[in-house]
Amino acid sequence: MTSKRLGATCVVDGDSRLLGIITDGDLRRLLQKTTDVANLTAGQVMTTQPKTFKRGLLAALALEQMESYNITQLVVVDDQQRPVGMVHLHDLVKAGLGTDAAP
Amino acid sequence: MTSKRLGATCVVDGDSRLLGIITDGDLRRLLQKTTDVANLTAGQVMTTQPKTFKRGLLAALALEQMESYNITQLVVVDDQQRPVGMVHLHDLVKAGLGTDAAP
Repeated sequence: MTSKRLGATCVVDGDSRLLGIITDGDLRRLLQKTTDVANLTAGQVMTTQPKTFKRGLLAALALEQMESYNITQLVVVDDQQRPVGMVHLHDLVKAGLGTDAAP
Repeated sequence: MTSKRLGATCVVDGDSRLLGIITDGDLRRLLQKTTDVANLTAGQVMTTQPKTFKRGLLAALALEQMESYNITQLVVVDDQQRPVGMVHLHDLVKAGLGTDAAP
């Protein structure tokens, strides 16, 4: 997460299908519950059934989804639920997507 | 940070002046360095000299600053460097600020 400069990373199964994500917020909430974190697995920390976005959909829908869930990034998946990328709110704003969302 | 649903909080001195912020990313990077976090103080964890935004400035400048530093929130301060709020990228997009940033 740090090397890619993202606030989240995907957890996948042996077939590269998405099992969950771990976000900076998950790590923060984890530290509220326990400071004994050295031996936890990714599976114990991740959020299961994270919000995802099919790669063929319009980017404007990604913006709507981020606003409605108050999140800043979405895992982009293919038809087999395999992560193919991550889209960040910054990406959408830079592409001018904020326009359609204006009142 | 969790109760306010923000990914950051301000650390202030006795005169309510900003000393630093602690972000979700700071907590993540902390966990990379050590898992012995139970006895750390806010001052040991915070980022000093965080990016701030004067409350009288145009919101469009906040968007520019977030894009250039790849961050999603800014501490809004008064002339005495006292935090008066936090502005999130979502706030700016919802206000239609994405428009001017379009290519």
